[in-house]
Amino acid sequence: MSTTESVHRCVSEERLRDDITTNAEFGAIRTDEGHGRTVLTGTDANRRAREYLVDRFDAAGLDVRVDAVGNITGRWVPDGADPTTRAVACGSHLDSVPEGGIFDGVLGVYGGLEAVRALQAADADVDRPIEVVCFTEEEGGRFSNGVLGSSVASGKRSVEDALALEDGDGVTLDAALTDIGFRGTDRLDASAWDSWLELHVEQGERLQDAGAAVGIVSAITGTIRCAVEIEGEADHSGSTTMAERTDALTAASELVLEVERATNDVVAENGDTVVGTVGKLDVAPNAINVVPGRVELGIDVRDVEYESMERIVARVRDCLSTLETDRGVETTFERPYDIAPSAMSERCTTALRDAAAAMDVPSLSLHSGAGHDTMHIASVTEAGLLFAPSRGGFSHSPREWTDWSSCATATRVLTAGLATLARE
Amino acid sequence: MSTTESVHRCVSEERLRDDITTNAEFGAIRTDEGHGRTVLTGTDANRRAREYLVDRFDAAGLDVRVDAVGNITGRWVPDGADPTTRAVACGSHLDSVPEGGIFDGVLGVYGGLEAVRALQAADADVDRPIEVVCFTEEEGGRFSNGVLGSSVASGKRSVEDALALEDGDGVTLDAALTDIGFRGTDRLDASAWDSWLELHVEQGERLQDAGAAVGIVSAITGTIRCAVEIEGEADHSGSTTMAERTDALTAASELVLEVERATNDVVAENGDTVVGTVGKLDVAPNAINVVPGRVELGIDVRDVEYESMERIVARVRDCLSTLETDRGVETTFERPYDIAPSAMSERCTTALRDAAAAMDVPSLSLHSGAGHDTMHIASVTEAGLLFAPSRGGFSHSPREWTDWSSCATATRVLTAGLATLARE
Repeated sequence: MSTTESVHRCVSEERLRDDITTNAEFGAIRTDEGHGRTVLTGTDANRRAREYLVDRFDAAGLDVRVDAVGNITGRWVPDGADPTTRAVACGSHLDSVPEGGIFDGVLGVYGGLEAVRALQAADADVDRPIEVVCFTEEEGGRFSNGVLGSSVASGKRSVEDALALEDGDGVTLDAALTDIGFRGTDRLDASAWDSWLELHVEQGERLQDAGAAVGIVSAITGTIRCAVEIEGEADHSGSTTMAERTDALTAASELVLEVERATNDVVAENGDTVVGTVGKLDVAPNAINVVPGRVELGIDVRDVEYESMERIVARVRDCLSTLETDRGVETTFERPYDIAPSAMSERCTTALRDAAAAMDVPSLSLHSGAGHDTMHIASVTEAGLLFAPSRGGFSHSPREWTDWSSCATATRVLTAGLATLARE
Repeated sequence: MSTTESVHRCVSEERLRDDITTNAEFGAIRTDEGHGRTVLTGTDANRRAREYLVDRFDAAGLDVRVDAVGNITGRWVPDGADPTTRAVACGSHLDSVPEGGIFDGVLGVYGGLEAVRALQAADADVDRPIEVVCFTEEEGGRFSNGVLGSSVASGKRSVEDALALEDGDGVTLDAALTDIGFRGTDRLDASAWDSWLELHVEQGERLQDAGAAVGIVSAITGTIRCAVEIEGEADHSGSTTMAERTDALTAASELVLEVERATNDVVAENGDTVVGTVGKLDVAPNAINVVPGRVELGIDVRDVEYESMERIVARVRDCLSTLETDRGVETTFERPYDIAPSAMSERCTTALRDAAAAMDVPSLSLHSGAGHDTMHIASVTEAGLLFAPSRGGFSHSPREWTDWSSCATATRVLTAGLATLARE
C-alpha cells in the first residue's frame, strides 16, 4: 500500500471533528449566526483549551513541552528515526478573536495532531521527528498585535519582552500564563526545525470560487498598520456655524475614502492581492450635539509587494497634509506595525502540491492576505502554508465554517506533505 | 435716579461671581484646559448645586418651591405688588453635559437671582411677582434628550411620563430625584406666567466678532435629529479582496461628507443660520483587522426655517438609497427628535433691546442655534432669550468662558428687561 493510500485511510474525519467540536466548547458564544467562541490568552477558556490539547497529545504518546511564553509542543519520534535530526514541525494556534469562529487556528493544531496519529496508524516510513505546535496569542486580542508566540520562537522578540507585555488592565503575559499554569521554561526555537507546515482555513472565497479543495500558499502578504489621529475642535453643534468649524470627523471621512480609492487604484494596476482597510475609527467626544473634536483611525494595508503597500501609505500621508491645509485640522501619523511580505519555501510548496496531486485533490496556488504564525517561521526555516476552503469566506465571526469533509481532505494533504518532508 | 442707573449700581459683579464660582465646585473636573464640571441630574454634584441654590434663594427672601420633576422656583413678590397677578419669570438650568463648562445654564439661574437682588436693593418700581427658575435636566445627559423640566412646565410632557424615564442603568427620574431630596409636588406651570426671559452664554463667536456685549435672540432654531444605521459585512481585512467587501464605514464616510455638502449648499443659498452635524459615529466590530460590518450615526440638523432642515434630511435619505444601490449596504433611518423653530416674543425682545440701549450696551440681534428651555416656554407664554458673549465661542467644554464683567453687563440688561416686563 502506498503512503498516499494509507494516509487516506488512516486520517479520521470523526476523530478530527471530535477534537474541534470539543475545543469549540471552550469560550463558546451562543448565537443564531453559527458557532462562535472567545478565547483570549490567559483566560479560563484558554486554559481549558490548552489542557485538552495536552491531554490529546498525551493520549497520542507525544512528548509535551511548554515554553516560557506558553507555546505548547507535542513531539513524536517515529520508530527507527534518529531523535537528533532536525524535526519537521506543523501546527497553528488555539486563541481566537472576540466572537471568532471555531476553525481559525484550531484546524491547524488538531489537523497536525491528526496527521501524526495517521502516520502512527499507517506505520509510515518517516525518518525525522514530527512536532505539533500550538503558538500563544496568534490573534493578538489581549497582549499584542498578534503572532506573539511565533515571534518569540523565531527570535524576533525576546522572551523577556514578551513576558512583560501587559493587557489593558496592566496584567502581564507572565502573570496571565502563570495563572493558567502555562508559563513553562526555555524558548521554543523554530530555527532548529528542518521545515514547517501550517494548515489553516482560507478566510476568503477563492477556493470555493475555483472549486479547489486545498490552497497552497505561494506568499503571505506583508502588513503595514498606521495609527492616525485627526484633531479638530469640539464645539456646540447648534451654535457653531459651518464656516467656524474644524470638524475632525468630516476630515476623517475624507481619509477613509482616500484609503479605499488609493487601494482600488493599485488593484486596477497590479491585481487584487492588495487590500487597504480602515477597520477602527473612534470619535471624541462622540455626542450628537457636539462637533467632533478628535478622531483616531487604525489603517491596515497588505500586499505581496512591499512597494505597492508603500504607495498606499504615501497616499495616506498626502491626504493628511491636504486635510491640514484645507480643513485646518492637526494630524499625527504613526506606523506601529510593519511586516514585509514573505514567500513560502519551494520545497514545502512542492511537497504539498505533489501530495494533493497524488491524492487527486484539486489544489489552487494562491497568496495569503491574512498574517499567520508561518510569516515569522518562514524567516528562520523552510515553511509552507496550506488552506482549507471557508464556506462563504466568513472569518473572525461565528459564521466561519469549513465542512468536516474539507477539514479531513486538507488534513490528508498535510499528512502526506509532512511525510514527504520527514523522509527527505 | 432712573431705573437704568439704579440697576447699573445694584447689580453686583462680585456677588454673581461668588455664586457661579461656588457652583463650579460641584462636580468640578480638574483639567489644564479651563474650568470644567460634570453635573448630571440626580447625582451628588446635582444635589449640592440644588441645595446651594435653595440656600441663596432663602438668603434673598425668595419663596422656594420644588415641583414633581425637580424644577426649582424662587418667587419674590415686591412690596406693593399684587401677588395674584401673573409673574414675570426668568432662569435657566444647573445641570451640565459631561465635562461641560461652568457658565452654561448657571449664568441664567444666578443672573436671574442677581436681578431680583438688584431690584430689591434698588427698591425698584415693579408691579408683578418675579420668579427665578432652575429647570431639571436641560442638557439631557442622563434621562432624556434634554430640555426635560421645561417640557413638563410647558405641558409638552406629562409629569408621569417624565418621572418614569430611566437612565442607562434602569434608575427612574423619580427615584433619582427622591434620592437627592428634590422630588417635589405639583407641576410648575409656565403658561401661568406673564412672560419669561432667559439669560444664557452664546456658545458661539458672533457677539465677540461683532463687538457686541449682549445678543438679543430673534428665534431659536428647530432641531431634527436622525439615527442612521448602515449594515455591511464584517470580514477579515487581510483575506477579503476589495471587490468582495461590503464595508459599512466607507459607506458611512460618504454620508458624513454628504451631510456637510448638503448643509453648505443651504448656507450658500440662505445664509449661515443652518447647521448639519454628524456628532456621533460608532463602528462595529471596530477592530483594525476586520472590515467594518456596521456603523451607527447620529445626525443633528438645525435652522430657523423648517423647510431648509427638511431639504437636508431629504439629501440624507437620497444618499442612503444611493449607498444601498452602489455599495450593497442595508440602511435604516429614524427621526427620534423633531422640534420646529421658535420665534421670540416681540414684547420681550423689545424690552431687552430698549434696556440695552438705555444703558449704552451694544447689542446684536441674532438667532440661537442651540436649543434652550426657552424653546418650550415660548410655546405657552411670551418669551425672550438674551446672550452673553462666549470667549472664543467654546461650549460644552472646560474651555467655555465668559468674562465676569460680561456676565455682569448681561445681567444688568436682564434686570432692566425684567423690570420693564414687570411694570407693564
